[in-house]
Amino acid sequence: MTHVFEDADSFAEEAVHGYCMVHERIVRAVTGGVLRSTVTPAGKVALVIGGGSGHYPAFAGYVGAGLADAAIAGDVFASPATQLIASVARKAERGAGIVLGFGNYAGDVLNFGFAAEQLRAGGIDVRVLAITDDIASASPEETSRRRGVAGDIPVFKIAGAAAEAGLSLDDVERLARLANARTRSFGVAFGGCTLPGSREPLFEVPAGKMAIGLGIHGEPGIEETDIMSASSLAALLVERVLAEAPDGASGRAAVLLNGLGGTKHEELFVLWTYIADALERGGITPVSPLVGEYVTSLDMEGCSLTLTWLDEELEPLWLAPCDTAALRVGNTAPAERAPALPDESDVRRSWPDATPEAKRAGQTFALALSRLAATLRNAEAELGRIDALAGDGDHGQGMTRGSRAAAEAADEAAKAGAGAASVLAAAADAWAARAGGTSGVIWGLGLQAASGAFDDRTSPTREQARQAAKSALEAVMRLGGARPGDKTLVDALAPFVETLVADIEADLPTKVAWAHATERAHEAANATADLLPKLGRARIHTERSRGHRDAGAVSLALAARIVGDTINEH
Amino acid sequence: MTHVFEDADSFAEEAVHGYCMVHERIVRAVTGGVLRSTVTPAGKVALVIGGGSGHYPAFAGYVGAGLADAAIAGDVFASPATQLIASVARKAERGAGIVLGFGNYAGDVLNFGFAAEQLRAGGIDVRVLAITDDIASASPEETSRRRGVAGDIPVFKIAGAAAEAGLSLDDVERLARLANARTRSFGVAFGGCTLPGSREPLFEVPAGKMAIGLGIHGEPGIEETDIMSASSLAALLVERVLAEAPDGASGRAAVLLNGLGGTKHEELFVLWTYIADALERGGITPVSPLVGEYVTSLDMEGCSLTLTWLDEELEPLWLAPCDTAALRVGNTAPAERAPALPDESDVRRSWPDATPEAKRAGQTFALALSRLAATLRNAEAELGRIDALAGDGDHGQGMTRGSRAAAEAADEAAKAGAGAASVLAAAADAWAARAGGTSGVIWGLGLQAASGAFDDRTSPTREQARQAAKSALEAVMRLGGARPGDKTLVDALAPFVETLVADIEADLPTKVAWAHATERAHEAANATADLLPKLGRARIHTERSRGHRDAGAVSLALAARIVGDTINEH
Repeated sequence: MTHVFEDADSFAEEAVHGYCMVHERIVRAVTGGVLRSTVTPAGKVALVIGGGSGHYPAFAGYVGAGLADAAIAGDVFASPATQLIASVARKAERGAGIVLGFGNYAGDVLNFGFAAEQLRAGGIDVRVLAITDDIASASPEETSRRRGVAGDIPVFKIAGAAAEAGLSLDDVERLARLANARTRSFGVAFGGCTLPGSREPLFEVPAGKMAIGLGIHGEPGIEETDIMSASSLAALLVERVLAEAPDGASGRAAVLLNGLGGTKHEELFVLWTYIADALERGGITPVSPLVGEYVTSLDMEGCSLTLTWLDEELEPLWLAPCDTAALRVGNTAPAERAPALPDESDVRRSWPDATPEAKRAGQTFALALSRLAATLRNAEAELGRIDALAGDGDHGQGMTRGSRAAAEAADEAAKAGAGAASVLAAAADAWAARAGGTSGVIWGLGLQAASGAFDDRTSPTREQARQAAKSALEAVMRLGGARPGDKTLVDALAPFVETLVADIEADLPTKVAWAHATERAHEAANATADLLPKLGRARIHTERSRGHRDAGAVSLALAARIVGDTINEH
Repeated sequence: MTHVFEDADSFAEEAVHGYCMVHERIVRAVTGGVLRSTVTPAGKVALVIGGGSGHYPAFAGYVGAGLADAAIAGDVFASPATQLIASVARKAERGAGIVLGFGNYAGDVLNFGFAAEQLRAGGIDVRVLAITDDIASASPEETSRRRGVAGDIPVFKIAGAAAEAGLSLDDVERLARLANARTRSFGVAFGGCTLPGSREPLFEVPAGKMAIGLGIHGEPGIEETDIMSASSLAALLVERVLAEAPDGASGRAAVLLNGLGGTKHEELFVLWTYIADALERGGITPVSPLVGEYVTSLDMEGCSLTLTWLDEELEPLWLAPCDTAALRVGNTAPAERAPALPDESDVRRSWPDATPEAKRAGQTFALALSRLAATLRNAEAELGRIDALAGDGDHGQGMTRGSRAAAEAADEAAKAGAGAASVLAAAADAWAARAGGTSGVIWGLGLQAASGAFDDRTSPTREQARQAAKSALEAVMRLGGARPGDKTLVDALAPFVETLVADIEADLPTKVAWAHATERAHEAANATADLLPKLGRARIHTERSRGHRDAGAVSLALAARIVGDTINEH
């Protein structure tokens, strides 16, 4: 249970702030994350890591000499927004390029990927490294679909040591990819966790049971059994991990026995005695093993075993000194304190001149977004519940945060006299920048594409509405990579757009077309209950998520109705 | 919930073993605890700390350069046994004396105190340091009754730095006592914890409620309120601690915001932002604050705030380098590995020649102890439950462990032909050595005293039984410090012994006297429900413990019946 917080919405941000206050010797806070507070020499490759919050010490706890240069912290269990990743990475960059490291989750892949494109557009060489160590999350034939869990830590440690040693971006990337390719994790869970501000756990494991392969956000696992003795649990973990030893693996491995938050050190130490035995019988010598809480999931009960098979290149990097809040190895030289960063001042937007009609249209857009934000706020818990059945349960929070930011930005723009296109563009930027998660970047992109169909001179036309809908669908599918049937919002967006476009082309009144399209979106959202999840989720499916609707499709259908109602009134 | 263990009885021992495997660079396991694995120079004062297990990183996590020389680990929530403390301390001693540091709990006070006497008898200068930082556990007029909680850490850190700096035993003791006198802690709890092997929590806090001042083993607190926001909680903690600022305190303090296990780092970081503000308003500058899990209580949910007001002597010691598994400050020089210790071989006992009658009596004693062990094993959960209502809930486990060890030792001695006195003495030694906790040392002392009334030449006489009972009561009261009415086993033992002695002196048959005495013990055990706890417990009393029997008195009454039944049959 998460009991201590002030405002659930700002929990992650306040936690990072407090962390930086306590560890000011090592880190300092910047918008979106943390940087080393010590001088880093020019010409060093920057290792920038991140992901959702709620996993401390991941990721901010691993910033410091010999490890990461910066970390970006999203909201609890939600990917950080693209703009924040790019902004923190720019501050960490020292002229030798950036490795962006994160666990392989749909939202992180999108946001870090888009951030990399933005950074490259600014002339910075960036390599993207998605960690894929969780063998329970996809089959050996589909390792690129595997989630990243505690294996983040040995891979980042090795990459950080390579960067600290002054290796080139190519070499740091090569070694990091090698380490990831040689890293395997397998975990079990005894109990779920509760998001700050929630009264109910995000997911649960039945009393006395153990969920094998359950994801750290509650993503479906492989099976449930009775809780095992420490020796049987050790045998299970070691057997599963060793069964996937990489080809040509040596007998030496970095080993991490990780507690998820509610499984305590003494339990892990007991378990370690049996794991060490089982590894020895399996011919593995653990090199400088770590046993403790390294990637948590709030107070989730459970643990995982990670092995990174070492060779003569990787082992010295694993053993190299580092000085971070969560991990210290050896002694590092006392570092000089970095000078203060220039103040980050808010960029004030100015808007193109708009006609009265376009301003009125902008006000209507702002009103629709404001109503959407209110509706999504009310639906937050239910959307989270639907999402948690198959995924990481962050959808409700992400949609609330994104729609509120978008509504605020739209309101500000409309009050400043912006026209329809500018209001929508401002909303899109704010949604993408502040929502985080998968839904944040997807909605931001979709709205951004839609805004391009309008202008600041006219009242929106039927043709513009048709074009906006088509552009939004194209952008979402192209950039998000989802197809109809993948159990995402595309399942509702595609029939919505197709119906709207067809009805407009058939010269039906816009109101009728919109209502018809909205109806189709609702039917489609409900129909997602019959689909299996495919995108960015575990392929190993459990009964738990069967028969439940996709939260993204549900919120898209909700939005279609709210926007339609608002347009009809104006 | 504690889920990962092999055998609940050996949880603590296996945890220490695993801990030493993981941190072999710093520590090595010895019987009863851990020692530094690095060379410590002769002439350095030894800081030896310890207490019950279940509190990692306390205490083994604080052994290493610049902090403790050794730690003794009792069973979960139970004081280590006297003999183990003395044995570990002897191995840590380097010719300049020992400071024995522990939290102020009845069992620890007894066991560390007796160990100090044993060590002094061997010519070693020993200072005993009971930490008394928990301001919720007794009034400011009775600080010596206060429990030790997270304040252990700054006090031990300061004492360890003083010892490492080469100060004399007098100076290390003086600085440690000064630090303790300037240390205040105050805590809250949101939820209880579960002992390994238990299905039910040792204690609980109602959902949505917060127990203010609750002890880390569930000892009664001050009051229950609704859970507060982080800012209100910060204000409460700071207000209570600052209200007891020591006379002449400076504006600089070592500060520790401690999580009890189930309250996670991100929650603590959020809370810290408000605590730092409140401290600043209170005129306190936190010096190198610690925010994290430093003294846990398995997976208990809750946190505490500790301040140690610093002066120019204490501050450099707080900031001095140390290198332990749980706390690293600055850089310490790489240390040479200590040579292996000589094997600890079991001392084989030999027994004085005994007559056939005395051997038969020894066998009867062994049988009675074996039946007692079986009975206590069955009653373990219930005794633990009774104990948890007012105390730390370890009574059932301690009695099971002690009686089993005593029964095994008695059986071995009886089979080897030992007489009545020797069998009882062997049982007493084993109980004291292996039970730990308060009950372990008390029962060991009581049985040891009783054994002196018998011999290995005769069958026990009525006069010997009378004398044994008197001696046991005297020893328990003298060494344990409890009086009738203090809600301890003395409440049942005293009427038992008085009745037995009076009836024997009145020439009643032994069977009748024993039955009569047993009846009185049972009445008295039930009557303890009307007493308030006084000894080694919080004086701040709640409804929770009112009206419940004392577990120690109950088990004494149980034992009286079992032993009587066995004697009657033989």
